[in-house]
Amino acid sequence: MRAVRLHGYNEKPTVDQVPEPSAKGPLDVVVKIGGAGVCRTDLHIILGQWDEAMKPTLPYTIGHENAGWVHEVGSAVTNVAVGDTVILHPTPTCGLCHACRAGQDMHCAQSIFPGLDGTDGGMAEYLLTSARACVKLDPSTQPKDVAALADAGITAYHAVRKAVPLLYPGTTAVVIGAGGLGHIGVQCLAALTAATVIVVDRNPAALELAGQLGATHTVVADGTHVDAVKDLTGGEGADVVLDFVAEEGAENEGFAMTRRAGSYFVIGYGGTLVVPTLDVIATERNVVGNIVGTYNELAELMVLAEAGKVTLHTKTYPLDEAQQALADLDAGQVRGRAILVP
Amino acid sequence: MRAVRLHGYNEKPTVDQVPEPSAKGPLDVVVKIGGAGVCRTDLHIILGQWDEAMKPTLPYTIGHENAGWVHEVGSAVTNVAVGDTVILHPTPTCGLCHACRAGQDMHCAQSIFPGLDGTDGGMAEYLLTSARACVKLDPSTQPKDVAALADAGITAYHAVRKAVPLLYPGTTAVVIGAGGLGHIGVQCLAALTAATVIVVDRNPAALELAGQLGATHTVVADGTHVDAVKDLTGGEGADVVLDFVAEEGAENEGFAMTRRAGSYFVIGYGGTLVVPTLDVIATERNVVGNIVGTYNELAELMVLAEAGKVTLHTKTYPLDEAQQALADLDAGQVRGRAILVP
Amino acid sequence: MRAVRLHGYNEKPTVDQVPEPSAKGPLDVVVKIGGAGVCRTDLHIILGQWDEAMKPTLPYTIGHENAGWVHEVGSAVTNVAVGDTVILHPTPTCGLCHACRAGQDMHCAQSIFPGLDGTDGGMAEYLLTSARACVKLDPSTQPKDVAALADAGITAYHAVRKAVPLLYPGTTAVVIGAGGLGHIGVQCLAALTAATVIVVDRNPAALELAGQLGATHTVVADGTHVDAVKDLTGGEGADVVLDFVAEEGAENEGFAMTRRAGSYFVIGYGGTLVVPTLDVIATERNVVGNIVGTYNELAELMVLAEAGKVTLHTKTYPLDEAQQALADLDAGQVRGRAILVP
Amino acid sequence: MRAVRLHGYNEKPTVDQVPEPSAKGPLDVVVKIGGAGVCRTDLHIILGQWDEAMKPTLPYTIGHENAGWVHEVGSAVTNVAVGDTVILHPTPTCGLCHACRAGQDMHCAQSIFPGLDGTDGGMAEYLLTSARACVKLDPSTQPKDVAALADAGITAYHAVRKAVPLLYPGTTAVVIGAGGLGHIGVQCLAALTAATVIVVDRNPAALELAGQLGATHTVVADGTHVDAVKDLTGGEGADVVLDFVAEEGAENEGFAMTRRAGSYFVIGYGGTLVVPTLDVIATERNVVGNIVGTYNELAELMVLAEAGKVTLHTKTYPLDEAQQALADLDAGQVRGRAILVP
Repeated sequence: MRAVRLHGYNEKPTVDQVPEPSAKGPLDVVVKIGGAGVCRTDLHIILGQWDEAMKPTLPYTIGHENAGWVHEVGSAVTNVAVGDTVILHPTPTCGLCHACRAGQDMHCAQSIFPGLDGTDGGMAEYLLTSARACVKLDPSTQPKDVAALADAGITAYHAVRKAVPLLYPGTTAVVIGAGGLGHIGVQCLAALTAATVIVVDRNPAALELAGQLGATHTVVADGTHVDAVKDLTGGEGADVVLDFVAEEGAENEGFAMTRRAGSYFVIGYGGTLVVPTLDVIATERNVVGNIVGTYNELAELMVLAEAGKVTLHTKTYPLDEAQQALADLDAGQVRGRAILVP
Repeated sequence: MRAVRLHGYNEKPTVDQVPEPSAKGPLDVVVKIGGAGVCRTDLHIILGQWDEAMKPTLPYTIGHENAGWVHEVGSAVTNVAVGDTVILHPTPTCGLCHACRAGQDMHCAQSIFPGLDGTDGGMAEYLLTSARACVKLDPSTQPKDVAALADAGITAYHAVRKAVPLLYPGTTAVVIGAGGLGHIGVQCLAALTAATVIVVDRNPAALELAGQLGATHTVVADGTHVDAVKDLTGGEGADVVLDFVAEEGAENEGFAMTRRAGSYFVIGYGGTLVVPTLDVIATERNVVGNIVGTYNELAELMVLAEAGKVTLHTKTYPLDEAQQALADLDAGQVRGRAILVP
Repeated sequence: MRAVRLHGYNEKPTVDQVPEPSAKGPLDVVVKIGGAGVCRTDLHIILGQWDEAMKPTLPYTIGHENAGWVHEVGSAVTNVAVGDTVILHPTPTCGLCHACRAGQDMHCAQSIFPGLDGTDGGMAEYLLTSARACVKLDPSTQPKDVAALADAGITAYHAVRKAVPLLYPGTTAVVIGAGGLGHIGVQCLAALTAATVIVVDRNPAALELAGQLGATHTVVADGTHVDAVKDLTGGEGADVVLDFVAEEGAENEGFAMTRRAGSYFVIGYGGTLVVPTLDVIATERNVVGNIVGTYNELAELMVLAEAGKVTLHTKTYPLDEAQQALADLDAGQVRGRAILVP
Repeated sequence: MRAVRLHGYNEKPTVDQVPEPSAKGPLDVVVKIGGAGVCRTDLHIILGQWDEAMKPTLPYTIGHENAGWVHEVGSAVTNVAVGDTVILHPTPTCGLCHACRAGQDMHCAQSIFPGLDGTDGGMAEYLLTSARACVKLDPSTQPKDVAALADAGITAYHAVRKAVPLLYPGTTAVVIGAGGLGHIGVQCLAALTAATVIVVDRNPAALELAGQLGATHTVVADGTHVDAVKDLTGGEGADVVLDFVAEEGAENEGFAMTRRAGSYFVIGYGGTLVVPTLDVIATERNVVGNIVGTYNELAELMVLAEAGKVTLHTKTYPLDEAQQALADLDAGQVRGRAILVP
């Protein structure tokens, strides 16, 4: 089969012929890929930025945002059957560690991360995963339409869901960054809360989309945006700030936009938060980390998607044009999410 | 009456004769002080470090950690009567703002902070406060024995109480700093959780006390303490780190001691937290601010104190020797908490 | 001034001339009534059904669902001023007891309940209440349009807000009773959750309204409704059942509609719940009591109302026609809520 | 091997020779039993009282409270190895349903219950279970010393853990029934809370034990016990009532002992709760169902047990004397828990 494989850092991945995977373990599932999202993290991988954290052995197949149809199942798989339409949680988990037993899939002690840690990912015709990663979908769902929910979606949803108890009527949420994750976050906020939603982005077009998706106010990130958020919140700042950027200064601006007793959610990455502990305690603010989400959260997000409450803007590319998709993403030429279709 | 008043920064406060306060407002309460704690924050005040944040008008009476007996009450006071033994929440609150209505006294929109913001505090014979600050105690309680719970105690208790849901059996809490607040924190952890408690301090004598108060393990902060905590937690770090120091590098060590999906509680202040957002998200760790506590939390802490589950080590000084008490504190000569007794 | 006063049980209340109230205490507030809701509880009061629980001294003015404009304030009132538009929490609270300090206004130890416990209520030109009962509204708000939120609204909102953490996407809420409270509950569910909402009522017209307000499914309570709810929930029952009726058998049907690990919320009253403890434990179901709500919840509900997310169907009557309004309510002739306008 | 098998209702189970089980499925685990608890539920099973709910095919081996050593493992088992000391969660779960993915093992959609539903239980030399049921213990642990924690223990712990957030200092918990489950509940309350604990039982000897295990007050259930609890709680009732009996009237007394805004936890079973909905709403009380507990809760309880914070009173019988153990239990001759040792 064909697969998009990374042979060296700072080199373009190539579409190679590799053997099809098969289900050897009792909980193995092989999925015929229907759509594989192209994520900014793939650009970071190619640049070698995840080498230290993940220590992958090259070459391997990238792609960590996948949906498709079940092609083969191991002997102990009971939750899906061949032919089922599925979206895949990004981390097939062990199911036996403390985190798995608490439903905290993203903290599985033996977690693997296909497409990121050297395990073959989903920019291919077939992907080997496990029963525990499969969320069964309505057969009418097109994998390419929802694939981006497997990583961008779950990450945004997970953060919003954690914030819901803080976002009762009368409160304000700020969304920093209305791109791939942020535009899903805005929809999740609209579906799950009655909070005022302020979206901050450099790009006026992204803000226009955010307004259509449920933002109450939009603010151009032009250097006056911290003050603008303060003005929109009676000088107080927001109860919750969801920072989908968290680099190039957004991280410290995000904390500055957070009101007394409020919470600053870090979802993006790349920057460095610098905060005097006096500022943390005098206002009793929190910094909340976020990573991917649980299996059940992905299932919940699919309920929102199937109800039309969360929709994705996507641009599809044939698998063979993976290099073009990556180049377009890098050049800022992709509106919404690029999806590879085998 | 006599009162310890600050006339200028970097000057020693003096014991002056000033008029006794009286209850003019309907919810006013005048308390005859039985004990006023001497806190490291008083040293900071004298150095002018709170000038910018609080903008007090000098001179004023310091002392924000007070207990005594009700001396006079306003017309609408119903919760205490003349003669009652009381400990005082540090911030008399408005009772009408959103935070007050949610029980979040420390976030009162119109909060005043006697002894800190230019309002006269409790290093005096009498203190003017409000009905909302008074927690009624068993008449057998000696105010000087419990005064330090009014600020040091409530602050430690508030942080521990917020951490309780995270500290189920099998988890580990680290306490950084076993001084005035920390030694109360250790007792609160022992009273409210079955977690393993690791106490970190530079001072072996403080660690010995911590061991008597319920610490499972003690670690000398000698430069190898982050590794020592990691070793005691299977290489993972602690589920909760309660940092009562949060300066001179403790703040970044504290975050480093925090395990995946764990929470680092900032309670002390003075340092600057510097954390890459990648570290926040990759491990989904949280930074949790803490300030004082609620009125009900002070009442709960007094239940623990009256049951003997939280005890204080104190050294009393006559009010007239306030300068000596402050000097002893500054020189590290006070074991436990210095208490002024009028 | 004129006031609707109850002189004896099973007698019609009369519109009498009584003295206007005045603000004598420091936190007293006199409100010029703009709208007073007529509630089924008023019918129960007239029948003497609250006599044992509340032991009111007759005669007194009824009406516990009020909004208007501030007419006079006591010396210590800081949150509202003369002329402000306000809606009134039904129970002016002490502000000093443990429940008040926890924000649990409805559990105030010294609670009074104007219009119910013998204290004069709001079916009058003026009402004496306290600063703590006043929620300030946008001056453009018409008291008669929102008065019913003061009791019916807060009660429905309180129950829904408690249920929100249980109602993540993919779950189902059943609303039993789409009348005065229920039709607000449906709107609150739509505003705060993405749950599937099934509304059960005997009255097809009420169900039609429920459908317009956000119900996903409606079920006529014709004897097959427990089965119908089971069918709509894959045989499992609902995660949350909000029972705004809780009499005439609805209470046991409501519990029967609740799924394994689900929660049955009692909001209405009159019936008797009969449940084998084996049924409670074998399925780990909960029965959740609900009464009125907190001050902050009323404020939150007004945010929803001012944003148009909760709207009321009302029919106004002049104060002098109170008997007619009560008679119409008793005869089932009121669509939505009857509101007296002085 | 030998196994205690039930051939007919209202007949004594017999010790039969049956084939040893073997690990056929990839997640199967065969455990050599070191201790099997004899539970009141076993008496109910013999009387046929679980026939309708569980529909077991007779004969089968009873015993649902087991600990021992791993004897054989399936191909995909990674959490335990042959020779490991283990205690067994009573329900081997599927690991793939919504409840399992949320960590709610006791609500597994495909749950089996060895020893109860016709699947062979642990009153035998060997038991077939699954990897997901095995909690690995310190090798120094004696299975017979802890076996009773596998069902009685987890059930008591689960209820207490749910109650912990309600039981801050100053609150009161009532424990009804200080027998097999209740005496563990008292220890869990002492380990996890600083609440006042009142224990109610008919048996003075049980109350004496409760006092040694941490009860603050003990009350003989002699008909005046509801009043006695009211007297001990200032007339209010308890914040939390944990009812380990819930039959013969205890269930309605338990609800009556619960204070305003409090929660009545049903853990025992057999009686019928009869509560006017007016009583539920007027006081906003809750009824909370409880069943078994999660896998992680069993692991947490074992931490308490290994730390000596929860200890069991047991009486061992050889497996061949199972009839005697059941007879002794039925006759009230067992102090603590009877444990069969193969």
